[in-house]
Amino acid sequence: MSDATPPDLRRRLDRVLQPRTIAVVGDKGARDYLWLKSMKPFRGTLYSVQLDEREIPGIEALGVPNYTSLAAIPEPIDYVVCAAPREVTPRIVQDCIDANAGGVALFTSGFTELGDETGIELEAELVKMAHGAGLPLIGPNCMGLHIPALGVRFSPEQPTAEGGDVGFISQSGTHGLNFSLVGAVHGIYCSKMISFGNGAVLEAADYLDYLADDPATTVIAMYIEGVRDGERFARTLRAVAARKPVVIWKGGQTEVGQRATQSHTASLTTSQRVWSALVKQAGAISADNLDELIDVVKTLRMTKPPPGRRVALVAMTGGQSVVIADAFVKAGLEVPLLSDASYAEFSEFVSVIGGSYKNPLDLFNTMLYDPGAIERVLAILDRDPVIDSIVFELSAYLLVRRWEKQPAQFEALLDTLQRFNAHSAKPLVTIIYPAHVEAKVLELRAQLQARGVATFPTFERAAAALAKITEYHVTHT
Amino acid sequence: MSDATPPDLRRRLDRVLQPRTIAVVGDKGARDYLWLKSMKPFRGTLYSVQLDEREIPGIEALGVPNYTSLAAIPEPIDYVVCAAPREVTPRIVQDCIDANAGGVALFTSGFTELGDETGIELEAELVKMAHGAGLPLIGPNCMGLHIPALGVRFSPEQPTAEGGDVGFISQSGTHGLNFSLVGAVHGIYCSKMISFGNGAVLEAADYLDYLADDPATTVIAMYIEGVRDGERFARTLRAVAARKPVVIWKGGQTEVGQRATQSHTASLTTSQRVWSALVKQAGAISADNLDELIDVVKTLRMTKPPPGRRVALVAMTGGQSVVIADAFVKAGLEVPLLSDASYAEFSEFVSVIGGSYKNPLDLFNTMLYDPGAIERVLAILDRDPVIDSIVFELSAYLLVRRWEKQPAQFEALLDTLQRFNAHSAKPLVTIIYPAHVEAKVLELRAQLQARGVATFPTFERAAAALAKITEYHVTHT
Repeated sequence: MSDATPPDLRRRLDRVLQPRTIAVVGDKGARDYLWLKSMKPFRGTLYSVQLDEREIPGIEALGVPNYTSLAAIPEPIDYVVCAAPREVTPRIVQDCIDANAGGVALFTSGFTELGDETGIELEAELVKMAHGAGLPLIGPNCMGLHIPALGVRFSPEQPTAEGGDVGFISQSGTHGLNFSLVGAVHGIYCSKMISFGNGAVLEAADYLDYLADDPATTVIAMYIEGVRDGERFARTLRAVAARKPVVIWKGGQTEVGQRATQSHTASLTTSQRVWSALVKQAGAISADNLDELIDVVKTLRMTKPPPGRRVALVAMTGGQSVVIADAFVKAGLEVPLLSDASYAEFSEFVSVIGGSYKNPLDLFNTMLYDPGAIERVLAILDRDPVIDSIVFELSAYLLVRRWEKQPAQFEALLDTLQRFNAHSAKPLVTIIYPAHVEAKVLELRAQLQARGVATFPTFERAAAALAKITEYHVTHT
Repeated sequence: MSDATPPDLRRRLDRVLQPRTIAVVGDKGARDYLWLKSMKPFRGTLYSVQLDEREIPGIEALGVPNYTSLAAIPEPIDYVVCAAPREVTPRIVQDCIDANAGGVALFTSGFTELGDETGIELEAELVKMAHGAGLPLIGPNCMGLHIPALGVRFSPEQPTAEGGDVGFISQSGTHGLNFSLVGAVHGIYCSKMISFGNGAVLEAADYLDYLADDPATTVIAMYIEGVRDGERFARTLRAVAARKPVVIWKGGQTEVGQRATQSHTASLTTSQRVWSALVKQAGAISADNLDELIDVVKTLRMTKPPPGRRVALVAMTGGQSVVIADAFVKAGLEVPLLSDASYAEFSEFVSVIGGSYKNPLDLFNTMLYDPGAIERVLAILDRDPVIDSIVFELSAYLLVRRWEKQPAQFEALLDTLQRFNAHSAKPLVTIIYPAHVEAKVLELRAQLQARGVATFPTFERAAAALAKITEYHVTHT
């Protein structure tokens, strides 16, 4: 743990982030028992705390035992979710302390982010109480924990899954939820997700530090609106990024965005220039939106580490060979001429009438008349010492046509890509674009993903993701 | 027509671009009769010219009458497609001239873009012949015409449709094909598409000039790799953009991209800085890829013209309110504080606990408990004089949930958006994001599109498209 982290925080977070017992305080019918329903797959024991007699029958109908206080629950609670109104939160936090709860997440909002006197005073009181007792308080104004392997969720739509390896730290419940939902579509699951809202007691650096030591977490992703102690955050980030890739999406990059963060989490603002420099100097990876965050995490998980910035671009037509080159060069990658040995080999079988093999390659005619050529093309690029990564455009038009009309050739193509990806030391990135048959392209992506091949919907998304992980690997070796 | 355009070119293009007769020269079984099959829905009369006796039975089996020369066809041909090898192209062009054909597109490649001596000489010969006879020669190394209303196509997958209003001029057949396929998904159809490859005889300025006068064309989109006469192009573009919006996607923006354009269309290269300035000064709109081109065309067609740059951003949650603001400000739009009258009205019904109505608005709690509130929110923003455009995040998560669980409320929401969009003078742009239920989101977009509401898959795409059309309208009024 970093210098500024209390020495016993790791032990405390270990307990709350691996809960065997959970209590939800104040869930209610008006929100359709969001919390209790979300926690249904929880592998441990779930309790409810609710005083309101009108709510209790609905809770018991869900099969969850209800108590009228935390103290009344017959076993220690590792993780408490508080969904009660702000006025009663000090009472509930005191109950957590008295009952020796492992930690509490405050879903309750209306504190510094609302900015009224009551909200500010209440948050200060909670902070004082939590610090005094050493209670890990997550939030307030947050969605708390999502731990797929334990069935801990904050939305009934979130996945449960073994083996998730991405740690996600988020100041936004929405972005956390969306990361878990969209991530699942791309085969990405969390080891632990912490939505921490205002971060009044524990903030980004604390969770970052914890996940650095977490053996289940191999990649860390974050959505951050601000940090209180910039120096501590920078120091922690540098230390953690040296051990595991950290991908950071900063919310509030513009003045208006920062105005919105004030109403959202009351985070301290940082100029975007300073923030970008901080992330870069720490050796972390920046992402500018959810798609980019997921693309980078996906690429980190699915491709081999690129040893350098030189890419071979394989396009299916001349028009795409031009614009794929523009996209990858603009993203900061290099598209060198190939070695003489490669050109000699290509000259044997690649058509230059309506085609080209300079780099970018334009293989329309070659692929049209000789689908097996792809294996030869990949082998040549694999051997070429001036190439670090291979990018392959799988024209949606040609691919879907082949799928429908030549299913055996289509399967052979997928086999070739899978085999190459599994055996080559070079990263392989594929693009299925554009999606004029959108539903089919979704199926195609799922098929390639199941075979372990990273696939993107546009050149720009593939280029940004490959450029970012290349920069990470090149600067960390 | 512009000063540099031969005075009779308009009349000649009128004939070839509204063909009543088409002849395909040299189609063959090895390419599965691409051309004859593509032209199947052609409303006029289709002929084949093929000498090879092995090919003729296959052609006649398609029901297309075959002749052994253009001269033998019993009526004048308005549009000839030449798919024969490069060596025989001068013969075929001479036949076109002798038979007084309306014009010819040369699918044939292997000319200046291949760069060998034969290719360069052959192209020079074709240019000389076409200029001498005043023959509109499209290409070589191109896919020629796609006119959906007449059933003229260069791919069997292209749509046929009445009422297309977008003129598309492209140096790439792939980008032309993809524009027609992906465009159809977004309700965009061409009045006339011209894929013109190397542009050896007629180039971008000629087609641009023609489409400016074409009453069926209301928006012009282009994919360009280079122009021979930069001054003429700039002059033409300025004149045309003053009459109709012109959206230009430039291929070869980078050095490597330009290397690829050499193998693709042998276009003269221009520095990207010079090109960007030219497009801006001409009052045209730049796009950097197919998606952006389609987004801008869609927004031009589906929204009211924005009178200024000030947008109201309506998000469903706090996290999204932050990042939607970042996206729209980064795209160059302004997100002002609203007028006092709007704030007074919002204070009556919008929750500020877990919400905000500053701008961006965060309406999660408001929308959750009062779906009808959206109508009130839109009416307030419609009246607010500091707002020029309205951007509405339709959370995919909330929308799909409502669709499944509260179908009547869901329909009411779509009705409200449709009604507002039809009656308000302010542009409305919606975003359904992120697509964790991708197939459903595609259906949702189609439903909104059918109701005339412009919908985008990400904040960034919506922001770029709205910013680009705003700049166009603001600078052209």
